[in-house]
Amino acid sequence: MNSKKYVYLFSEGRADMRELLGGKGANLAEMTNLGLPVPKGFTISTEACTRYYEDGRAVAPEIEAEIFEYLRKMEIMTGKQLGSEENPLLVSVRSGARASMPGMMDTILNLGLNDHVAAAMANLTGNPRFVYDAYRRFIQMFSDVVMELPKSEFEAMIDKMKEKRGVKLDSELDAEDMKELSAQFKEYYRRCKGEEFPQQPERQLLESVKAVFRSWDNPRANVYRHMNDIPYSWGTAVNVQEMVFGNMGDDSGTGVAFTRNPSTGERALYGEFLMNAQGEDVVAGIRTPQPIAQLEKINPAVYGQFVQIAQTLEQHYRDMQDMEFTIERGRLYMLQTRNGKRTAQAAFKIAADLVREGMCSREEALLKIEPKQLDALLHPCFDAQALAAAKPVTSGLAASPGAACGAICFTAADAQVKSKDGPVVLVRLETSPEDIEGMAAAQGILTARGGMTSHAAVVARGMGVCCVAGCAELSVYEDQGYITLAGQRVNEGEFISLDGSTGSIYLGQIPTVDATIAGDFGVIMGWADQIRQLKVRANADNPRDAAAALNFGAQGIGLTRTEHMFFEGERIAAMREMIISETQEQRRRALDKLLPMQRGDFEGIYRVMEERPVTIRLLDPPLHEFLPTQDEDIAALAKDMGIPFQKLKDTVVSLHEVNPMMGLRGCRLPILHEEIAQMQTQAIMEAAVNVSKEKSISICPEIMVPLVGSQGEIRYMRSLICAVADRVLEQAGLKLDYRVGTMIELPRAAISADRIARHADFFSFGTNDLTQMTFGFSRDDAGKFLPAYLEEKILEHDPFVRFDEQGVGRLVERAVELGRGERPDLHLGVCGEHGGDPASIEFFHRVGMDYVSCSPYRVPIARLAAAQAQIKFPR
Amino acid sequence: MNSKKYVYLFSEGRADMRELLGGKGANLAEMTNLGLPVPKGFTISTEACTRYYEDGRAVAPEIEAEIFEYLRKMEIMTGKQLGSEENPLLVSVRSGARASMPGMMDTILNLGLNDHVAAAMANLTGNPRFVYDAYRRFIQMFSDVVMELPKSEFEAMIDKMKEKRGVKLDSELDAEDMKELSAQFKEYYRRCKGEEFPQQPERQLLESVKAVFRSWDNPRANVYRHMNDIPYSWGTAVNVQEMVFGNMGDDSGTGVAFTRNPSTGERALYGEFLMNAQGEDVVAGIRTPQPIAQLEKINPAVYGQFVQIAQTLEQHYRDMQDMEFTIERGRLYMLQTRNGKRTAQAAFKIAADLVREGMCSREEALLKIEPKQLDALLHPCFDAQALAAAKPVTSGLAASPGAACGAICFTAADAQVKSKDGPVVLVRLETSPEDIEGMAAAQGILTARGGMTSHAAVVARGMGVCCVAGCAELSVYEDQGYITLAGQRVNEGEFISLDGSTGSIYLGQIPTVDATIAGDFGVIMGWADQIRQLKVRANADNPRDAAAALNFGAQGIGLTRTEHMFFEGERIAAMREMIISETQEQRRRALDKLLPMQRGDFEGIYRVMEERPVTIRLLDPPLHEFLPTQDEDIAALAKDMGIPFQKLKDTVVSLHEVNPMMGLRGCRLPILHEEIAQMQTQAIMEAAVNVSKEKSISICPEIMVPLVGSQGEIRYMRSLICAVADRVLEQAGLKLDYRVGTMIELPRAAISADRIARHADFFSFGTNDLTQMTFGFSRDDAGKFLPAYLEEKILEHDPFVRFDEQGVGRLVERAVELGRGERPDLHLGVCGEHGGDPASIEFFHRVGMDYVSCSPYRVPIARLAAAQAQIKFPR
Repeated sequence: MNSKKYVYLFSEGRADMRELLGGKGANLAEMTNLGLPVPKGFTISTEACTRYYEDGRAVAPEIEAEIFEYLRKMEIMTGKQLGSEENPLLVSVRSGARASMPGMMDTILNLGLNDHVAAAMANLTGNPRFVYDAYRRFIQMFSDVVMELPKSEFEAMIDKMKEKRGVKLDSELDAEDMKELSAQFKEYYRRCKGEEFPQQPERQLLESVKAVFRSWDNPRANVYRHMNDIPYSWGTAVNVQEMVFGNMGDDSGTGVAFTRNPSTGERALYGEFLMNAQGEDVVAGIRTPQPIAQLEKINPAVYGQFVQIAQTLEQHYRDMQDMEFTIERGRLYMLQTRNGKRTAQAAFKIAADLVREGMCSREEALLKIEPKQLDALLHPCFDAQALAAAKPVTSGLAASPGAACGAICFTAADAQVKSKDGPVVLVRLETSPEDIEGMAAAQGILTARGGMTSHAAVVARGMGVCCVAGCAELSVYEDQGYITLAGQRVNEGEFISLDGSTGSIYLGQIPTVDATIAGDFGVIMGWADQIRQLKVRANADNPRDAAAALNFGAQGIGLTRTEHMFFEGERIAAMREMIISETQEQRRRALDKLLPMQRGDFEGIYRVMEERPVTIRLLDPPLHEFLPTQDEDIAALAKDMGIPFQKLKDTVVSLHEVNPMMGLRGCRLPILHEEIAQMQTQAIMEAAVNVSKEKSISICPEIMVPLVGSQGEIRYMRSLICAVADRVLEQAGLKLDYRVGTMIELPRAAISADRIARHADFFSFGTNDLTQMTFGFSRDDAGKFLPAYLEEKILEHDPFVRFDEQGVGRLVERAVELGRGERPDLHLGVCGEHGGDPASIEFFHRVGMDYVSCSPYRVPIARLAAAQAQIKFPR
Repeated sequence: MNSKKYVYLFSEGRADMRELLGGKGANLAEMTNLGLPVPKGFTISTEACTRYYEDGRAVAPEIEAEIFEYLRKMEIMTGKQLGSEENPLLVSVRSGARASMPGMMDTILNLGLNDHVAAAMANLTGNPRFVYDAYRRFIQMFSDVVMELPKSEFEAMIDKMKEKRGVKLDSELDAEDMKELSAQFKEYYRRCKGEEFPQQPERQLLESVKAVFRSWDNPRANVYRHMNDIPYSWGTAVNVQEMVFGNMGDDSGTGVAFTRNPSTGERALYGEFLMNAQGEDVVAGIRTPQPIAQLEKINPAVYGQFVQIAQTLEQHYRDMQDMEFTIERGRLYMLQTRNGKRTAQAAFKIAADLVREGMCSREEALLKIEPKQLDALLHPCFDAQALAAAKPVTSGLAASPGAACGAICFTAADAQVKSKDGPVVLVRLETSPEDIEGMAAAQGILTARGGMTSHAAVVARGMGVCCVAGCAELSVYEDQGYITLAGQRVNEGEFISLDGSTGSIYLGQIPTVDATIAGDFGVIMGWADQIRQLKVRANADNPRDAAAALNFGAQGIGLTRTEHMFFEGERIAAMREMIISETQEQRRRALDKLLPMQRGDFEGIYRVMEERPVTIRLLDPPLHEFLPTQDEDIAALAKDMGIPFQKLKDTVVSLHEVNPMMGLRGCRLPILHEEIAQMQTQAIMEAAVNVSKEKSISICPEIMVPLVGSQGEIRYMRSLICAVADRVLEQAGLKLDYRVGTMIELPRAAISADRIARHADFFSFGTNDLTQMTFGFSRDDAGKFLPAYLEEKILEHDPFVRFDEQGVGRLVERAVELGRGERPDLHLGVCGEHGGDPASIEFFHRVGMDYVSCSPYRVPIARLAAAQAQIKFPR
């Protein structure tokens, strides 16, 4: 016989056994061992659930036997027996995963009732209405949850009964009505299933346990897990517990309460209750619950006991608790406790207060804040009440957090003009670099195509502008001046509202509330900064973003992309002139026009950042991105530049690539045409010289080479860059240090990082491209199949959102090992979008990176996540 | 002082010191130690050359000192002195790399002459014409090679002198003329360089040594190295040797000889000589050399001595020798010996003969054959004499070996028709799958775009058809009916000739010689098969290719690509119907049409291969490859299929991808639309059942999933495939084994091979795609920058031709380790183009692959290379 234990009495568990017993089970056990009044019961472990799936959705005989063995123990402890007519035991069967998944999985109450038990209990309790109400509820739940019969049929029978009796509320139905209903329900069950409703309580129990296991895999649970990063592999535990009833009369009741206010963080018991009611009734909302403080008047003893228990639990768990309780005939029972969910504002206040009250250390307090919650503090969000009333028409990817509400416009130019008269939302198939100014002018951006690392998503995050990307149910009819959202037409100029934190899209206006940084934010972030080892930089391409980044606490700039600088009016002309140049001389002439502009860009950034590190990446994208593609645009440009249409068209065609992501870009460009990198190096070094002189400081430029895959490339580029840089410094008569490093964004760079490190002062892991190439997922095209991958559980997460530790992570670990092996002082950072994702940051901390770099608006999240990583994995 | 030794007397070296002393130096040393008559001298090592480049092209003082120390030793040994007027030493300074690079680097002869020495020697020898001829030759060589003055100026002065004297040949000029010429040469030198011609012999020596080092990096040496896979990092040695003169009168002479016939392999001394001449004169071709046997009549003693030496050398080296000798005043001197180059036919005969003669073992004999030479036996080649007279007009990539001569035609359809009347060459910008039948009908294929793994290259190699791809100097004006090659117009129907082994392209007709497999081919390949551990399979997509592969000795099929099967008339229609299906039912209907065709394909292959393993890969490319792209073609197809133009156009547009190589292809297709893989699996299994029954054999299908990157994908695909396969077997009532495996062609697959191995019976490394993704080099676009990479020495080799051990190789090693770690019986093979490249095969043998799979025509090369790998690295 298998000696593995799958079932635990509450008295056998502990709070720290959450992986095995689930959150609910572990806390029931902890409360039991604290001596609190918890109805007796046992927990079937998450391992039994995993085993259930491994065994092809079957409960192994030894686990079945163990469940009944523990049922017998429970019967001894309660003095009651399942199915007994003298002393019947009724139980609840509830799910309970490691992480809270409220309402996502199934529950069965009042299990143990059958025709005989119900009749006997009606006698024993002298309350037949209560008993038959419980029985019909059980038949209803079991049929729905375990047997998957449609809920609506049961509701219809109840409605018919109320009509027949001429009453409006369920509570107006009497004992006979309820008995009659339970008979109707059983008959309906027999008709549908071709067998009688199960009268054997043990079969009821086993089927219910299986149903809860099964509900781990239901669609809404799967969606919830994706949204909350909960692995499918965890499984759920099942809690079997003696029923207590809040609906046994006016001395009974049920309620929920928090030890502190979950909206504000204020330290005061907060919650509500209903007398003579079960949990469902509170949810149903027919009767209005009373504030928890009112309980003192109704039953001061129970209230006093509850206040005492609440204090005990908060001190025991050293965190704000969310509790459920039931009063049965004047006796208090605790049904659940857990760390309570809270708003971002409350999270900061509670964390700070707990430390001030001496309840926990700074480290413990920091771990209580969910970094992603900071989005709500840093971006506008919808008015909570208005949002509760609104229904999304469709949704897309939650590409850049915050809430936006504005009039639809279709072009960046339009957005710039119309935003002067009121808020606008820019709606496009996809955005491109020319749209940047219009994007900045809009409240929000909505696109039909593109994933989490598409242009729209990356730029919007950088600007802190709300963005919903890749909305499959959006069609844009720009010519006719309207869009459709899930088939509904909305005209240009009409309002829509976007939630960039959830991806939801609403028709019409939902009022927004501005970002508000609460009082304790600074205190908490200060603690995070003291603790964390991982530095946090920002990705910023201009002085404005650099200033925003500084304001959010960035310690430097990890990535300045130079390509965004070439799209404005005068610049794009010079850029295009360079691209269509036929000789090195022509190219140099065009680059000479760009030089002062680039130098000015870098001077602006250096003036903001002063001596803080700034990593500037040389031009990366394929040149054709800077050229027009449509014949009419080519014709216009040809006219502008005074060259024949056909010649320009030929250039555009010759630059076309089958797979541009793997084509002539990155360092491959300067290896073919060195003048581009020479101009950029000159601009960087001259800017550093000028600002160093101007401010009497010493700027140390960090020049980064993109798309290096081999030792030969970085050696070539380093010598090209050093030649120019040394010449500039010599001419300026100034001694400045500078560094030359490389992106690690190709698998070959990672796997040969030792050789590359010979010629690089630093590595910056470009995890977007590294993810692309390692998976062979084009970020522009993966939208077609990634959703199916997540749905079929082929991948647990979108690897562009959460860093793929198991695959790409192995390459990064190897690169760190090889790079530091060759050169122990090698400086290592991450500048992909993952640099702002808390789970990914923990990984980067563990592998020994020096810094992460992310969008300015993600800097506070990264600072907090870095502190949490250090607390969990000290280094 | 640095104690490292950079200079070696010939008497200090040995044949196995070739890495240090170069081939020439090592063999001079070996001959010296065998007691053969070798002029005295010393070798400056390849490490000195490497050091020269490391030190920024300078000879370190300690190396300079060492050179002169050895010069002194040489002076003592010869009793002569450099620069002495009494007993002058003249030396030659010659390059000598590890691998032979004939004529690619520089040589200086007669070094040591200056005005005084020349005058003294004229007296001493009594032969002033000889002395001043030598002097003017030295000035000419030194000026050209060391000082880079134009050769033509010197030739012009000689021509002028001959005109003045009224003579035609150099030999008709007398002593005074030569003296006068040397004066003119020195004057010209002074005018150009602004200084006198160096009279100090030591300076002459040092400058000459540097010039030889420098010549390692000259353009023609670099080109030669690329063509012959010789690493740039090796460097060249320099040999300084006492001059001996074949032009001191009628008792002097010079010649070259082979110990066996290098064209046929026949065992007989083979070579030629000229009396009263220097090596240059033989090359110049003014006088016709005599066959070596004639020497017996002129000087029987010397001839006898030479025959003896030739035998000694062949027996010593146990291989056919290529020797240079000089006779100075009746005395024989050996100047060089090396293993002789030979034709493929000779290589086989010599190798077999050497074993038969007991001169060497089978293993040693196998190592003497260059696997790539087999191309010449397996493909037609140009008539050698005609080829010698022809000059290529331009060149492209040597994409598929062999020679072809035919009339130009532009379309596959044309090629099929016109090939009935005479040979044709198909010329296209690039080829696509529809062209296959036309490609098979052509003698050769020439394309303007595409690299070594482009469609044209891969398909042509598979068919054994000659192909030159990616010719930059080819423009195709199909509408006007002509092409230009390096600017020269050639009309449709005119003849061109292609050399697919070198990439050269010729105007007009060059006669070709059919492939001939020589008598000893079978003997040698038999030995190779006995020795090798690595199995050799072929890539074949149809019964014809499978039969060809069997004929070439393939042990199975490592890759059957199913996509090529869908391009013929009826099939492409059904394929397109499937692609534009909107519902699963429509798609299934279309697939039902394809099923019997696919089953027939596989039956054909199984009938050829019987119980030998056949690995069939499920559909891999993006679906849009099967659809037309031009509006007119879309319109035609829409009409054919009876659907609106716009609907089909929308489908084509919606399937467009930004980076199709990283888009919806491989296993991503069936994960979205499972019916495709289900149909293919059914066809494979039913074919295996039918042929197994028909022939009473047991076929074990190997079903391969393309583009797997994660455990989830292979797990999903395996269960999909097994469900269909098991059903087919059950219905057939037949027990067949079958295997499900995966390509390893994404970096993520390699790096997580342990997890993937849990669900795969075999791995087949798709090194083409793995190279693409690891480098981020699109094989369709890399043609723009790869040539620059090779030229700038950023990469040593095109990684699509020769497997990149340092980068992609590390991933493959890791994958082998992880895969076998999880599953020791995991079957491992390679099916990329590298499977036919000898250097790559050696790597695959070393890492422990079970087999390689290559184009049928490369199978013999792979068999030989696999045997050589086993001999060098026994496993």
